[in-house]
Amino acid sequence: MHNRLLPTLLIITLLAMVAGFTYVHWSKSGPGAGLYSRDWLPDPVQGYWDPNNFYRSSDSVQGVFEGKQCVQCHEEITPGIVADWRASRHAQGDEKVFCNDCHGGDHQRLHLPTPEVCGSCHNKQQNESEDEARYGFPSHILAMERAVDAPHFADKPKAEVQSCVQCHSVATKCDSCHTRHRFDAAESRRPEACITCHSGPPHPDDTTYFASAHGQIYLAEGKDWDWSKPLTKGNYKAPTCAYCHMDAGRHQVAHKSMWKFGLREINPHTSNNQILRRRWIELCSDCHAEKEAAQWLGELDRERKQAWSMLYMAEAVLKNLRSDQLLQPSAAERPPYPMGSLWPMERIGFYEGQASAFYNVSGIERDYFEMWYFDNLGAYKSAAHGDSAGVKEGHQKMATSLEHIQTKAHKLRQRAATEQETEITPAAPSIWNSGAYTDYNREHN
Amino acid sequence: MHNRLLPTLLIITLLAMVAGFTYVHWSKSGPGAGLYSRDWLPDPVQGYWDPNNFYRSSDSVQGVFEGKQCVQCHEEITPGIVADWRASRHAQGDEKVFCNDCHGGDHQRLHLPTPEVCGSCHNKQQNESEDEARYGFPSHILAMERAVDAPHFADKPKAEVQSCVQCHSVATKCDSCHTRHRFDAAESRRPEACITCHSGPPHPDDTTYFASAHGQIYLAEGKDWDWSKPLTKGNYKAPTCAYCHMDAGRHQVAHKSMWKFGLREINPHTSNNQILRRRWIELCSDCHAEKEAAQWLGELDRERKQAWSMLYMAEAVLKNLRSDQLLQPSAAERPPYPMGSLWPMERIGFYEGQASAFYNVSGIERDYFEMWYFDNLGAYKSAAHGDSAGVKEGHQKMATSLEHIQTKAHKLRQRAATEQETEITPAAPSIWNSGAYTDYNREHN
Amino acid sequence: MHNRLLPTLLIITLLAMVAGFTYVHWSKSGPGAGLYSRDWLPDPVQGYWDPNNFYRSSDSVQGVFEGKQCVQCHEEITPGIVADWRASRHAQGDEKVFCNDCHGGDHQRLHLPTPEVCGSCHNKQQNESEDEARYGFPSHILAMERAVDAPHFADKPKAEVQSCVQCHSVATKCDSCHTRHRFDAAESRRPEACITCHSGPPHPDDTTYFASAHGQIYLAEGKDWDWSKPLTKGNYKAPTCAYCHMDAGRHQVAHKSMWKFGLREINPHTSNNQILRRRWIELCSDCHAEKEAAQWLGELDRERKQAWSMLYMAEAVLKNLRSDQLLQPSAAERPPYPMGSLWPMERIGFYEGQASAFYNVSGIERDYFEMWYFDNLGAYKSAAHGDSAGVKEGHQKMATSLEHIQTKAHKLRQRAATEQETEITPAAPSIWNSGAYTDYNREHN
Repeated sequence: MHNRLLPTLLIITLLAMVAGFTYVHWSKSGPGAGLYSRDWLPDPVQGYWDPNNFYRSSDSVQGVFEGKQCVQCHEEITPGIVADWRASRHAQGDEKVFCNDCHGGDHQRLHLPTPEVCGSCHNKQQNESEDEARYGFPSHILAMERAVDAPHFADKPKAEVQSCVQCHSVATKCDSCHTRHRFDAAESRRPEACITCHSGPPHPDDTTYFASAHGQIYLAEGKDWDWSKPLTKGNYKAPTCAYCHMDAGRHQVAHKSMWKFGLREINPHTSNNQILRRRWIELCSDCHAEKEAAQWLGELDRERKQAWSMLYMAEAVLKNLRSDQLLQPSAAERPPYPMGSLWPMERIGFYEGQASAFYNVSGIERDYFEMWYFDNLGAYKSAAHGDSAGVKEGHQKMATSLEHIQTKAHKLRQRAATEQETEITPAAPSIWNSGAYTDYNREHN
Repeated sequence: MHNRLLPTLLIITLLAMVAGFTYVHWSKSGPGAGLYSRDWLPDPVQGYWDPNNFYRSSDSVQGVFEGKQCVQCHEEITPGIVADWRASRHAQGDEKVFCNDCHGGDHQRLHLPTPEVCGSCHNKQQNESEDEARYGFPSHILAMERAVDAPHFADKPKAEVQSCVQCHSVATKCDSCHTRHRFDAAESRRPEACITCHSGPPHPDDTTYFASAHGQIYLAEGKDWDWSKPLTKGNYKAPTCAYCHMDAGRHQVAHKSMWKFGLREINPHTSNNQILRRRWIELCSDCHAEKEAAQWLGELDRERKQAWSMLYMAEAVLKNLRSDQLLQPSAAERPPYPMGSLWPMERIGFYEGQASAFYNVSGIERDYFEMWYFDNLGAYKSAAHGDSAGVKEGHQKMATSLEHIQTKAHKLRQRAATEQETEITPAAPSIWNSGAYTDYNREHN
Repeated sequence: MHNRLLPTLLIITLLAMVAGFTYVHWSKSGPGAGLYSRDWLPDPVQGYWDPNNFYRSSDSVQGVFEGKQCVQCHEEITPGIVADWRASRHAQGDEKVFCNDCHGGDHQRLHLPTPEVCGSCHNKQQNESEDEARYGFPSHILAMERAVDAPHFADKPKAEVQSCVQCHSVATKCDSCHTRHRFDAAESRRPEACITCHSGPPHPDDTTYFASAHGQIYLAEGKDWDWSKPLTKGNYKAPTCAYCHMDAGRHQVAHKSMWKFGLREINPHTSNNQILRRRWIELCSDCHAEKEAAQWLGELDRERKQAWSMLYMAEAVLKNLRSDQLLQPSAAERPPYPMGSLWPMERIGFYEGQASAFYNVSGIERDYFEMWYFDNLGAYKSAAHGDSAGVKEGHQKMATSLEHIQTKAHKLRQRAATEQETEITPAAPSIWNSGAYTDYNREHN
């Protein structure tokens, strides 16, 4: 018996792998990209976020041009970007990098430069950037594929998808941080280079940094600093995003990343995380006593522990409601989201829920999602960046959310008890036979 | 029969017109201004927001003075504003514009300069500014009369009215944008000139612009730009408020305005809006490919469509509740707002509700108001200004509001069903016999 | 009889005083500080917030050093702070102030400079700063003892306590405003010196100032101002935090403070407040007409009156619920907070509730707390700093909170009426036998 089992399993596994690859291959043959490529149509503007897959050059001008010709003509048409190029290192010296070196010369087949194009000269930076993939998501280099391989990429309304991809395009082009066409290292050392994306509720890196003593010093005095200097000890009065996260200009931001963006609880004292802690302490010691740096990290540990103790309390309330079938509307009573789910289920917490918990859920599930994704992440970023008011605000909001969740759960149980006692169950009119995030979207994506 | 109807109707119409004019004339004879002038008393500070109607000069100093005398004395009393004047163009050359040229010379009859005073030299700007009236509200030039002609101007608490008028005074004086007494064009080209007013929940122009790539470039590098240059192609690395909305310094901001502030759904493809779209695309082409500009406008179209699909869903929920008389408290159970209403009614949506929906409404009506006025307008401004996180945040908030509205409606219907089944209607103590926005205010305005 | 009563009372009073002092002395003998010192353990990082009580020097380096030796070694280890010191007045001339003058020379007994250390040279500033204590809390100089003498200091989770103390440490060290090691007066004249702490929901001094015309002028032009000039008439185009609140550099911020942070309603026209009003008007007259300044203060009066009328309405709703025993969970049904309370009670409003109302309260109590502490204080700061959108936003939020409170109260009463009529009281499962702010914290503090 045992003799046959192993080869049978092997054959099944092999068949499953082949089926899987075939499925993926089949999936990728749609008009979109990624696992769900057959389920969405790219907007035209997608070409700017994912130029390799979707950029289509304009047909308006015919001909193949040399760099000087490009400049001559665009001096009239778009003088601003030509001025930026002239001020850039690309325009200095004898071996200039001209427009056609990055965009191609055939005006009907122009392309937008991908990281590979930039990397043909800036090899070190491209390699470092790709190295980030080793650390898993969240990651700059995996940002685009992580986005398009999620089922809700095909389900969400286009307006939101575009606003996601706009930042996730950091994986597919370099001008997210280095604005065209100056591409000045000095510019990208400033916080503004980062916070076009690192802002908003789930990652308020901008407000939390600016609220810190570091950020305030930057705001008051940064304009007088010499930004042409490298991001190393002694060159800056206060650190910026890049000084800490890309020290010495390393294009690999996961190098010291420990807390996984605050999305999950981690053990900060694993042997691996001890290495990352040492790296932080070493960096902070550019200005502070090592002891102080270690103490600050300890405070972050405490803040995280407290935050997760509240999150777990809330999660337990929800999971108990789900066990007792008291979540309303239940997964069976609402349109599934994302569509691709095999069967409807209430998704609670990081491993089950994640980003998909945004939509088509009951009020209490959404409360927990917001507690986790907005309140908690805000508190985390505040603690990590030294924004003390933000820590209080985040925890205060978590306490409020927890109270809301407990009260809503209480009411659901109270009503269930009343219905049992009175044997009256009011005919509840369905509220979720349609919604903002239903089949409509997939039909229109 | 028919022979008599027409002249009768004509006479009635004429009588109604005369009555209307008489009413308006009678109305305007109160201590305030506008249609409800008899219903409110101006605060003293109103003189600064509407100088033509309310400014009263100080009695403290007697005499008629020449400009040089003004300067001599105020050099001591208020040296800061004299320094600003000295640095202004008004103080250059032989034909200086002195204090008395704008304020008058008789110290007991000083006036604050109205647009007419400034327009006596700056004719082009004044004409352009007045031309905005052709496009209807929202509009700078109509801002003050639109405010004072609304019934809630007389109903709202003074503290809020003053905070409204502070910005609506853009119609009645020029120093909303050109800070006194330098009146530097360079200053008014910067975003800060606009965002003293263009900020806050219903019009977060500041945060959405600053969060965009354009805004971040301005924040990082704007201090080094030459702001004395006109707002035309090639002069600035990134656009600012005025660069796009007042291109080439045109003092008529409605020139390209299409979306009506996000307050109403519009059809972006009417022939008239096609003209405005062309204007936008032409402007964006100062730096970007035309094609890209058109694609971005298409994204804004999509964002608006999705936003309005959610708003209409919410509106339908409310209107159905109203039909079934399930809104609590109903208009009959609460103090009317605004007071001037002929009969109490639940006001839902743009055409019925608008700004008056702020006050004395049930929770679910307020939810919809906030969804429309804060969440939706925030999403719109984000999409229009290129703040991708703001689009997500706005739509996420709209989805949350929609869920709240649906859940509240569900509960109201569920309770109604229970009451019908059990035949028990609990004696509901009145909750709205007084409120924060009742007769109290009109009595104290 | 009467003859014996007086001496008996005297003896009892004396015994009570001795007992009180003994209690306080006993209390202070714990590992923490303040009245509850026996109930909490200091975090290591506490040494940076309260150096006098908790700073422990590093053991890593042995020896007693002269200033030049400190510099020589730290030039390598922490070049940034040495560069800051070199640029400071401390490093100029022949009588330099070296590292060891403030920190001591024995590397194993280094200390962080307290205000007394700085005050040994900067005597005037230290005296002014201590003079603030006369005005009571809120106050910079009382900030730390007020924090540690509150029972919730021992009850709150450490993560929040640390974030409180980080700003309350303004009482125990000078580098809250003067960043080390440049200690430049020019720097501390800028708003950034204040807003590291003066930010966040209960005191949005940053956003409200920046949203005002004053703040926008600062943002647009402040970089070109000469910050080495003293904070006096004619030196600055627009005022900053320090220009108004620390005019002429006075280190006593309570000098013109009238409104008690918006926490309580005050009568702005007491004879004492008339003196403070005169001081404000005199200050504003550096640039504005006296009359205008007085009118603005009148607007603030109106705004406060309106805000308090709404707060009192909400407070009355809650107090009536409490009288009728309808608050759920009641104080008896939830863990006491703070722990030190003699008996459980629902705490409503400033005098009963205050900061402790943050935690372990029912939803409706929390709504009122947030209305008072966030919405109201935001409106106040907006009115005081000239942020008109913020006034509207704050009042709109207060109106929303009031509606929520009224609606929740209505539902609690409606349910009570139903239960009475039906004689059915559903067995309510306890929801508050544990919470985020229970004994857990005290055990872990």
